[in-house]
Amino acid sequence: MNFKVLKTDTNSSARTSILKTDHGEIQTPIFMPVGTQGAVKTVTPSELKTVRSQIILGNTYHLYLRPGTELINQAGGLHKFMNWDLPILTDSGGFQVFSLARLNKITDEGVEFQSHLDGSSHYLTPEKSMEIQRSLSSDIIMAFDECPPGDADIATIKSAVKRTKIWIDRCKRYLVENPPIYNWEQTMFPIVQGGVSSELRKQSAEDMIPYAKCGLAIGGLAVGEEKPAMFEVIEQMDELLPKDQPRYLMGVGTSSDLIQSVQRGVDMFDCVIPTRNARNGQLFTHNGKINIRNEKYKFDFNPIDENCECETCRNFSRSYLRHLFNIKEVLGLRLATIHNLHYYLNLMELMREHIQKGDFSKWSEKYLNNYEKE
Amino acid sequence: MNFKVLKTDTNSSARTSILKTDHGEIQTPIFMPVGTQGAVKTVTPSELKTVRSQIILGNTYHLYLRPGTELINQAGGLHKFMNWDLPILTDSGGFQVFSLARLNKITDEGVEFQSHLDGSSHYLTPEKSMEIQRSLSSDIIMAFDECPPGDADIATIKSAVKRTKIWIDRCKRYLVENPPIYNWEQTMFPIVQGGVSSELRKQSAEDMIPYAKCGLAIGGLAVGEEKPAMFEVIEQMDELLPKDQPRYLMGVGTSSDLIQSVQRGVDMFDCVIPTRNARNGQLFTHNGKINIRNEKYKFDFNPIDENCECETCRNFSRSYLRHLFNIKEVLGLRLATIHNLHYYLNLMELMREHIQKGDFSKWSEKYLNNYEKE
Repeated sequence: MNFKVLKTDTNSSARTSILKTDHGEIQTPIFMPVGTQGAVKTVTPSELKTVRSQIILGNTYHLYLRPGTELINQAGGLHKFMNWDLPILTDSGGFQVFSLARLNKITDEGVEFQSHLDGSSHYLTPEKSMEIQRSLSSDIIMAFDECPPGDADIATIKSAVKRTKIWIDRCKRYLVENPPIYNWEQTMFPIVQGGVSSELRKQSAEDMIPYAKCGLAIGGLAVGEEKPAMFEVIEQMDELLPKDQPRYLMGVGTSSDLIQSVQRGVDMFDCVIPTRNARNGQLFTHNGKINIRNEKYKFDFNPIDENCECETCRNFSRSYLRHLFNIKEVLGLRLATIHNLHYYLNLMELMREHIQKGDFSKWSEKYLNNYEKE
Repeated sequence: MNFKVLKTDTNSSARTSILKTDHGEIQTPIFMPVGTQGAVKTVTPSELKTVRSQIILGNTYHLYLRPGTELINQAGGLHKFMNWDLPILTDSGGFQVFSLARLNKITDEGVEFQSHLDGSSHYLTPEKSMEIQRSLSSDIIMAFDECPPGDADIATIKSAVKRTKIWIDRCKRYLVENPPIYNWEQTMFPIVQGGVSSELRKQSAEDMIPYAKCGLAIGGLAVGEEKPAMFEVIEQMDELLPKDQPRYLMGVGTSSDLIQSVQRGVDMFDCVIPTRNARNGQLFTHNGKINIRNEKYKFDFNPIDENCECETCRNFSRSYLRHLFNIKEVLGLRLATIHNLHYYLNLMELMREHIQKGDFSKWSEKYLNNYEKE
């Protein structure tokens, strides 16, 4: 894998780059749709390409439980299993273990948890996470880290930083000592933790940088902290992390979060907002968000967004979409998902274009002023 | 609208024809996917065209309740509302009133019922059904008939035949006396009732034929009677109904039903089997039905049907489909629906081809022998 910055904005840290993987090139800044369980909910790989997705994310925790690592390995990897031939990034499974499963015990050795599906007991370690992600065939493997909850006290965050350092070394050792399964490169991104403490963030960044070959992630944000604190951490990371590697901000965010993070040097994002909100009827337009279930769209025969060129807007009206949500027809979930993903991926494309053109700051200021507060 | 028989099989009553409507030509025999509430569940109009749907069916009862006739009329008709520019047939609403709603009173004047959604009271008459279907913009309007349940006694069926005659006259009068709403032709199909009584069927056919301009329907079948009795009625209809008009067998059926009905001179079909079964995981293959939820498909990386060229079979494995059903991912419902609709519409195309080629009897015998009992 390799990463090449094409152009950096003169007024901010925004940059546009190319990240080369064995499953194709990714133009950054990029947003990665979340394909939790081997599918981006409601849509096909072909639709993901139509909205110009370049890389998607898979959730290790979910895939490990269902359909299981062995099956995906036998299928020839996740790309082949779900028929997605572009790059895939998998998370480490840790975040879901901490947030979704019933956590039984966490030690320096690993994490014992019970499946949220059937209560069965499992044990996840740095080595196990690497083994699973290798089997899943992902192009980008995330390090197994400890991500404390948003309301964790400083001692807990400190301990997580310390444990994350112990674990990154075991992750690396596993990958070095065990042969690859597939004939494409799988690159691990270390994850910087440290909550909103600049001291701990600095410590964690220093811990992680030596393990980064081509990419680092900023974890432990968007877990409940205030927005200014989040952006402060991102600014600090912009200073500390190597400029010649991609930076991935995990689990972020709204469209204004994305723009403000790109301004601070972030290259990669993932978030369930566009897909989850779509399924709740919340749709993005250039004039702000609308909820398509609203009575006022009953007789509105305009598209969701007049300026949008997605399949949904080209073919269907707000009135029809509202009807589909009203009768709980799953076609509505899909049409909404396509629109919101198109909106997000189009936003990333606009950012790349404006960075390239040299007017990113002007463009982003206008966008942020125009867009209603999220 | 006009109908032209292109070729009739020498060994059976099967024929292939062209039915011309203002929204395009329909090659028969044809199967009409059911778009209950302004959408064929889970799929887009563009996908319906990809599986070669030529005409779809809309349910008047459902559309009248939600989103309502006024809205669809304001949208410019059902074609425009749902973005389907090929022909549409709507049923009369009667069948759902009799089977789904709470029926309060039925007289020669009309039917009083309560909505299955909110218990609200409504009154449906032949005139009202015509008015609604006109507003819905359908190319083919179904007469408002009385369809007795499958276990009805002979007196009830006799009374239904009598009432259906009274009502067809009022349907026709409404259409003659009231100006059209859209600038395309909307043709009414009368419906022959009479249960499995050849005497009552004869009576009803004689009642209905004078009202048929270009098409008649055989109603009141597939409501619980034995298969041989159903085919006997269809044979009788083949003799009694004019050869120069299309015959539409309502609510039928399995693939072997379709073939055996085409042998008996039927041209048009609708049924929820391909779409509903798909959503239950039951998929059609050239070797019989399979249920994709079955454990035995867990590691089966073959397509649903090796000979199938649908989008689902070209891109996804049984194993993946099973996983999607297992995690209740709606993408699975869609991929299954596409496959089953493709199977049905491909079957109709095969029938047309073999009628044209002159070996329909040979082909259908082979198909029926090969296909496991449904």
